[in-house]
Amino acid sequence: MANEHLALDATHDPQRLSWVESANSADTEFPIQNLPFGRFRAGAQEPWRIGVAIGNQVLDLQAAGLLDHGDMNRLMAAGPQTRRRLRQALSQGLTAGAPQAATWHDALLAMDSVELGLPCRIGDYTDFYVGIHHATAVGRLFRPDNPLLPNYRWVPIGYHGRASTVLASGTPFHRPRGQVKPAGDAPPALAPSSRLDLELELGIFIGTPNALGEPVPLAEAEDHVFGLALFNDWSARDFQAWEYQPLGPFLAKNFASTVSPWIVTLDALAPFRRAFERPAGDPQPLPYLDSAANQASGAFDIALEVVLQTATMRAAGQAGETISRSNYADAAYWTLAQLVTHHSVNGCALAAGDLLGTGTLSGPQPEQAGSLLELTGGGQRQIALANGEQRRFLEDGDAIALRGRCERAGFRSIGFGTCVATVLPARPL
Amino acid sequence: MANEHLALDATHDPQRLSWVESANSADTEFPIQNLPFGRFRAGAQEPWRIGVAIGNQVLDLQAAGLLDHGDMNRLMAAGPQTRRRLRQALSQGLTAGAPQAATWHDALLAMDSVELGLPCRIGDYTDFYVGIHHATAVGRLFRPDNPLLPNYRWVPIGYHGRASTVLASGTPFHRPRGQVKPAGDAPPALAPSSRLDLELELGIFIGTPNALGEPVPLAEAEDHVFGLALFNDWSARDFQAWEYQPLGPFLAKNFASTVSPWIVTLDALAPFRRAFERPAGDPQPLPYLDSAANQASGAFDIALEVVLQTATMRAAGQAGETISRSNYADAAYWTLAQLVTHHSVNGCALAAGDLLGTGTLSGPQPEQAGSLLELTGGGQRQIALANGEQRRFLEDGDAIALRGRCERAGFRSIGFGTCVATVLPARPL
Repeated sequence: MANEHLALDATHDPQRLSWVESANSADTEFPIQNLPFGRFRAGAQEPWRIGVAIGNQVLDLQAAGLLDHGDMNRLMAAGPQTRRRLRQALSQGLTAGAPQAATWHDALLAMDSVELGLPCRIGDYTDFYVGIHHATAVGRLFRPDNPLLPNYRWVPIGYHGRASTVLASGTPFHRPRGQVKPAGDAPPALAPSSRLDLELELGIFIGTPNALGEPVPLAEAEDHVFGLALFNDWSARDFQAWEYQPLGPFLAKNFASTVSPWIVTLDALAPFRRAFERPAGDPQPLPYLDSAANQASGAFDIALEVVLQTATMRAAGQAGETISRSNYADAAYWTLAQLVTHHSVNGCALAAGDLLGTGTLSGPQPEQAGSLLELTGGGQRQIALANGEQRRFLEDGDAIALRGRCERAGFRSIGFGTCVATVLPARPL
Repeated sequence: MANEHLALDATHDPQRLSWVESANSADTEFPIQNLPFGRFRAGAQEPWRIGVAIGNQVLDLQAAGLLDHGDMNRLMAAGPQTRRRLRQALSQGLTAGAPQAATWHDALLAMDSVELGLPCRIGDYTDFYVGIHHATAVGRLFRPDNPLLPNYRWVPIGYHGRASTVLASGTPFHRPRGQVKPAGDAPPALAPSSRLDLELELGIFIGTPNALGEPVPLAEAEDHVFGLALFNDWSARDFQAWEYQPLGPFLAKNFASTVSPWIVTLDALAPFRRAFERPAGDPQPLPYLDSAANQASGAFDIALEVVLQTATMRAAGQAGETISRSNYADAAYWTLAQLVTHHSVNGCALAAGDLLGTGTLSGPQPEQAGSLLELTGGGQRQIALANGEQRRFLEDGDAIALRGRCERAGFRSIGFGTCVATVLPARPL
């Protein structure tokens, strides 16, 4: 792990204020200490442009003269030094009193006036399974006496997902159809999923690529990460149970996954690092996945939240209801550096813009679960909502929003924005 | 299944000869009846261009005035009518005596003088598991009493693979490192794979895309397929056995997959269709995967071959040795139309250039297996080669070539070219 990833500097100074007034409000997710990158456009016919969130505004990096192109994947591939120089320039130029205010003012757009898209072109998408409490809880539903498989504490389990159906936050999707197998001898049938679920994840975006055949050592792994976003890996549990043997989930997952618009960089997350500790008695990771630096600071303290807004709530003008809270640092059994190193140890080439899902980030307590499958004990129990509604799995019209926030005494709190989508009814046949 | 896919026309006339003399030789894979599409370039700094194989030549479609661009994915997306019009024009213009000879002659390049690349940009890659004899044989190694899982005869089993490591034929790759778990209580260790294997597959390239949320009905599924190529899904069996539970293969597969340079269109394959029959007593497919047309002509008679050339053979100037032969029509339990329809039934969006691997196409007899895992009974037996060498799994320096050929009385035989790559030693740490 390169030392720069740990360095705190003036960009993290909690006293620093911006000439963009909304960035100084106590409840903004995007103060001047955050500066996440995303893509926006002013209309459906316009090209995507690179922006940085600041308060309730988006700064157009090309219009501000900070970049001479609008290609996010190119910026991601340029590596951490380029990203950090840009962060320094942004932080200085956006600081209250900076002379850039006069010219950059014209490069600001109200965030609610633009379309926020996928933050980059996603070449390949991999989903990991780092949530040990999730893996244990889900494993217990299938194998009560042996919930965690023997490889779990050795191998950062992962599998490939579908890149073409990773959707920008806000894009609704139809309840999928698929094969469902009733219990007993009854044959399967094609039906809309009746066990539609969410998965609370973080998405890790690759920046610097590695060449085919050249593994990324653990000490360099974070240099290949551009940043993190919120990620919801929607899942049809009924399809999954029937199709997943022996090659893993397929149609249960690839109808839609939702990613939030803003990539929070590892630089912005530096104050929120934590030691990464394995439970006592667990095996030490193999040497290629082990280092003192990884243990000392490989985890990130990111508070996560799942908010459900039903159609009934929406019609009544009610905000959603939080149905779960967890924290990345408590949920993950492997660090993001370990994921990058493991993914490439066989020579697999990772490209700028590739997305690695963490897997469902359930906390250690049952109510901290990041999926309805866990919260309802496999659909056995209903969740009671404050307005009297109940849920086992998602109903048509339900919207799920994921939120993420980092807080630490002596530092400015930053947030991830929102990862949201609404379930539409299955299409008529 | 649209009727056009069944239509035989003048492009299939076995008497038709070309003014490109090499296309008329009895042993060419690329007579005028084939006309497969691929990408080539004259140098590493040149852009990829679209070409058609004719005898031992490549016709540059832009130089011949047949296309005004060089973007294969755009051509693929344009749909079957465009592809068929192009095939008609190519067939007429390349026919002996055609006036185009005078101008197209300058658009011909010797195939051995150009670099043949990946036939298109591959967005997403899915691997299916249609080889029922393969699934049974591999299942027997793990579950002797219950080799085929209950979902196999209902669900076209598939999973997502890695697009960024699908390599052009001829690209060598290093033996991968990964976690290997010895038997018993010994912990896993990082090591070069000692059970490196090939998988004999066909690759199905998507042409016409479908929109997110809009399934492709079985009757239209073939209209979304551009054509087929040979595909080798290299596999590290030792990694696979340890990592694949519960989410499927990952690092065991994503270090390299090799695809042949020429996409043989469904139009060229029309004479080689066959009825598609399920074994007596097997369940009828669910209605969305079932049609009279699919049964009448959904299979393709493609003879397949695996050729191994060891470093010793190469040093002695010996060609490779055929270690297995099978046939797509005998190996596959699901048609390519069924794969497209199943893949999209949940609304998953397929894009032009997406690659669907069939899965390993092992024939019904043990010696027709498409992997060393099967040919050696899980590595229990050696294969004896004619020069005295033996193999359980692949050794450094081994090259594997896949071949495919279609033959039918009354028609001109066509071939798929070669899908080849050589295993390099593991990189030093």
